[in-house]
Amino acid sequence: MADKFISRRNLDFLLYEVLDAEQLTAFDYYGGHNRKLFDMVIDAAAKLAKDRLRPIFEEMDRQGPVMENGRVKVHPAVGGILREYGDGGWISASLPEAHGGEQLPDVVSNLCRFIFAAANYSASIYPELSAGAAHLIVSFGSEDLNSTYVPAMISGKWQGTMALTEPDAGSSLTDITTTAEPAGDFYRICGTKIFISAGDHDGAENVVHLMLAKIPGGPPGVKGISLFVVPRLRPGADGTLTPNDVTVTQIFHKLGYRGAPITELSMGEKGDCRGYLVGEPHLGLTYMFQLMNEARLGVGLGATAIAAAAYYAALDYARTRPQGRPMGEKDPTRPQVPIVSHADVRRMLLFQKSVSEGALALIAQCSLYSDLVRAADGETAERAALLLDLLTPVAKTYPSEMGVLSTSSAIQCFGGYGYCEDFPVEQHYRDVRIHPIHEGTTGIQGMDLLGRKVVMNGGRAMTLFLEEVKTAIAQGRACDRTAAQADQLEAALGSLEQVTWYLVGVAGEKGPEVFLADATLYLELFGIVTVAWQWLRQALAAEKGLALKPSPRDRQFYAGKRFAFRYFFAYELPKTLALVRRLTDGDPVTIEMAPEMFND
Amino acid sequence: MADKFISRRNLDFLLYEVLDAEQLTAFDYYGGHNRKLFDMVIDAAAKLAKDRLRPIFEEMDRQGPVMENGRVKVHPAVGGILREYGDGGWISASLPEAHGGEQLPDVVSNLCRFIFAAANYSASIYPELSAGAAHLIVSFGSEDLNSTYVPAMISGKWQGTMALTEPDAGSSLTDITTTAEPAGDFYRICGTKIFISAGDHDGAENVVHLMLAKIPGGPPGVKGISLFVVPRLRPGADGTLTPNDVTVTQIFHKLGYRGAPITELSMGEKGDCRGYLVGEPHLGLTYMFQLMNEARLGVGLGATAIAAAAYYAALDYARTRPQGRPMGEKDPTRPQVPIVSHADVRRMLLFQKSVSEGALALIAQCSLYSDLVRAADGETAERAALLLDLLTPVAKTYPSEMGVLSTSSAIQCFGGYGYCEDFPVEQHYRDVRIHPIHEGTTGIQGMDLLGRKVVMNGGRAMTLFLEEVKTAIAQGRACDRTAAQADQLEAALGSLEQVTWYLVGVAGEKGPEVFLADATLYLELFGIVTVAWQWLRQALAAEKGLALKPSPRDRQFYAGKRFAFRYFFAYELPKTLALVRRLTDGDPVTIEMAPEMFND
Repeated sequence: MADKFISRRNLDFLLYEVLDAEQLTAFDYYGGHNRKLFDMVIDAAAKLAKDRLRPIFEEMDRQGPVMENGRVKVHPAVGGILREYGDGGWISASLPEAHGGEQLPDVVSNLCRFIFAAANYSASIYPELSAGAAHLIVSFGSEDLNSTYVPAMISGKWQGTMALTEPDAGSSLTDITTTAEPAGDFYRICGTKIFISAGDHDGAENVVHLMLAKIPGGPPGVKGISLFVVPRLRPGADGTLTPNDVTVTQIFHKLGYRGAPITELSMGEKGDCRGYLVGEPHLGLTYMFQLMNEARLGVGLGATAIAAAAYYAALDYARTRPQGRPMGEKDPTRPQVPIVSHADVRRMLLFQKSVSEGALALIAQCSLYSDLVRAADGETAERAALLLDLLTPVAKTYPSEMGVLSTSSAIQCFGGYGYCEDFPVEQHYRDVRIHPIHEGTTGIQGMDLLGRKVVMNGGRAMTLFLEEVKTAIAQGRACDRTAAQADQLEAALGSLEQVTWYLVGVAGEKGPEVFLADATLYLELFGIVTVAWQWLRQALAAEKGLALKPSPRDRQFYAGKRFAFRYFFAYELPKTLALVRRLTDGDPVTIEMAPEMFND
Repeated sequence: MADKFISRRNLDFLLYEVLDAEQLTAFDYYGGHNRKLFDMVIDAAAKLAKDRLRPIFEEMDRQGPVMENGRVKVHPAVGGILREYGDGGWISASLPEAHGGEQLPDVVSNLCRFIFAAANYSASIYPELSAGAAHLIVSFGSEDLNSTYVPAMISGKWQGTMALTEPDAGSSLTDITTTAEPAGDFYRICGTKIFISAGDHDGAENVVHLMLAKIPGGPPGVKGISLFVVPRLRPGADGTLTPNDVTVTQIFHKLGYRGAPITELSMGEKGDCRGYLVGEPHLGLTYMFQLMNEARLGVGLGATAIAAAAYYAALDYARTRPQGRPMGEKDPTRPQVPIVSHADVRRMLLFQKSVSEGALALIAQCSLYSDLVRAADGETAERAALLLDLLTPVAKTYPSEMGVLSTSSAIQCFGGYGYCEDFPVEQHYRDVRIHPIHEGTTGIQGMDLLGRKVVMNGGRAMTLFLEEVKTAIAQGRACDRTAAQADQLEAALGSLEQVTWYLVGVAGEKGPEVFLADATLYLELFGIVTVAWQWLRQALAAEKGLALKPSPRDRQFYAGKRFAFRYFFAYELPKTLALVRRLTDGDPVTIEMAPEMFND
């Protein structure tokens, strides 16, 4: 097992050299914080990840959850980890102080989550789910719900979940059939949910589901969806816990992400499952979007973290594994060289580095926007909100899709050994494959981006995004080392604009089906341009660092950034050419092909 | 489990409508065959695959090989399957009649192997390895070796292997250290081999390793490598079998391909491991290239088969799974539609169809070249030999690399269910990931293609390839339905030529390291152009079929070909734009980055 799964230096670089996260402490909301505190938090996260999560990375995969007598048994360390997270204030890190939280900026807490997920993705999701669920209650729940559920959730004693998906309503939430019959001060819940992460386990005293259901008689479709708190055990006023008729009907055996149980839940088999309404009836989906957006960023973050961990494992192997000789060396008696000496291996490592560090920069950028939404006001907050909204599907998908390729590239660096369980990369490869699926598939994200986000508010978010990228281009052009790439990015950005206008025209002429047929490819194009922008920003920060006579170690670090930046623009950005060609060629092949033509 | 894992109709299409495989029966060597016989053989393969291999597809994965008392225990069906293959003549199918074979053309036997691998890749490799090893003995071994080993191997009683790789010599065969000391009529073998597929198992009475080793005192490097038959048990003249000091030291636990044991072997721990020289000393690598080339085509074939099986599973699911409504349908009370109705799902299915059927066409094309090498003479044989040599790295790599993406796309069609063991696609995804690694990694194939094959014989093979593609372009241009794509292919082929000349110039100016730095990308470019050529050929055959007033079923089949062809040219061929840009931009980023710049 490679010791290194993240680069601490890179986190400082993003926080203080690229993003200037300290700016946040000037706002009242984050006034209690400072850089020293941020650093302490990150150091503590790194220690927790190293000491508690990483050592059981493989074990949690090999000894996956099992069903025993209707309950889910998970790795014995999970309960302790949840409690340790609670005690350390990790679950409540982003919550307001008024609700027992630390009011930590997302840009810091998300980097901590990155560290946890890189160490052990499965272990990291238990507290993360509790944090998201608690945040939802804090934002929209009554005082009673808050006092009954939130303290136990943020202490790590109770597990939180998000329960949306149903067997016949995966991507189509409009079709959920779980019902909630009013019954006085609660609702009787009846229905089935599937793919519920951490839907039950013996490491928590109770499980609190934030669940979507329909109140009979409400509007059809998504406008009739309400949000409920549905606990596994109902807490009584006297502190007792009564079974709430929530049954685990199965757990799923999965390709990866095996340390976390994904459950099917049945509510109300005995007619005694009680749910407690969060906020107003029929506004459930609106509320849930807070958690879904957080979760989407979290999925991008998780994929980035897994890709980073796999990259460091591959790098470690490439530095130490001798194999082959320099090209042109004909003498077989000369010693072999480490495989990092081969250009093709360096290409694969640079690919992984450019993907994982580029994606992380984007996640950090989005986290900063999220903090500005919370702390700033006026135009700053509005800008940040729109940019965050626009970039959420990108920050979810780019890392997820590229994480699959990046971990595959890590396997390739190991050769045959990468395919074996002796090294962690095959597990990273399995773990990351869920990310293009959960919290909205890539297809759904593409439609969200092109069909909603790009065109919302008269294209205002898109306009702001173009402004941001153009600012970076102008800065890039002013520096010799980045000028050529700034030009390249300008061309790609121009293409993205043109494609967008072209597709908007298609929408008007040919309707939504043709407009959105290749939304996935549009999202891919958008993702590459976005990460190129983030690489240009990183390159500018690296040049700034290099101008300040850095230590030899920092000089190497900045040189690495320079090369990953060059790599991204030489190898990744050109992929936009192919996407632009396809997105504007106008052949509606996927629309015209009738399903029966797949017969053969 | 989906019933369908291949398309029988597509095999007929390739054999008789695209390739005219019947032409082979005009040659003396294949004179004993005819179309009816070919069809019977393929039907028998389909039956064997369906009845014996497919039913244990999952079981062989879940109940992988285990070590027990120094022996490897595999799924109990393996022994019976090997024997059934032997009895059915499958192991000896391609061998000459003089050696007990059926003298079946590769273009037919490889389609049978495709069926087997699609049904159950792990199960299919046992007889395949025996066939390759037997062929090596038949080609280069003495009469004594032939009579001692080949009959038991082709009967399925004994397992054959290829034993090349060593712990410190993976891709670098020059560094193997296994020794073979002359000792009269045999050699004393001493050394370790790893990653030996089917290196031992209890389904075979004996295992016959075709093993590379060095005779002390021979030339250094690959010129000192010899080939030996090293049995697990030495057959005596009286039929007895004596242990030959070959020990299984471990089996590897792998991401996929779990039904087959991958072993580490130790030879000569007691000083009593005997090897029998095949052919002349020091020519081992030359001989082994016969098996390696067959195995490389076999790897491409296996990856294609796995991708095809995953595609049919995804297609079946997409046709039957209701989810969502047509774009623009706002009424949530309307019934849901099968997901195959969504353009994005059709895009993913067309991707998988275009990859698996495009790759299979290429494999079949190469198989036909192989048959022409054997049966024809003069220029025909020479052309075929050069084209086969040139295209082997492409036929190995395109299916392998794209198979990873194609099976991933199959998972995506299933959404969350695709990530679960309830459906076969997650296993296909795991099984296929070995293919870019075994029998020479993608990086090795790239260097083979650009560094050897393209430039060999003064570029003669490349010239022949360009001729072949241009012939198809000329035919494509003569047909309305394919003219636009023919133009597109001409442009892409022109780019490939230009890139090739550019890189040859780089080789002269800057030496082999810069020349070959992006050989992997060159191979990717070559692969896309090659498969576009194969799609054009398929489209022309489909148009021909459509002109002959086909049955309604055939009309659908041909329509499917039309759309997959259109898809490939609209979505896949444009990827060459990005590759050409990178391959000619001249920034030696992977060469210039020093290993220590990865420090951070």
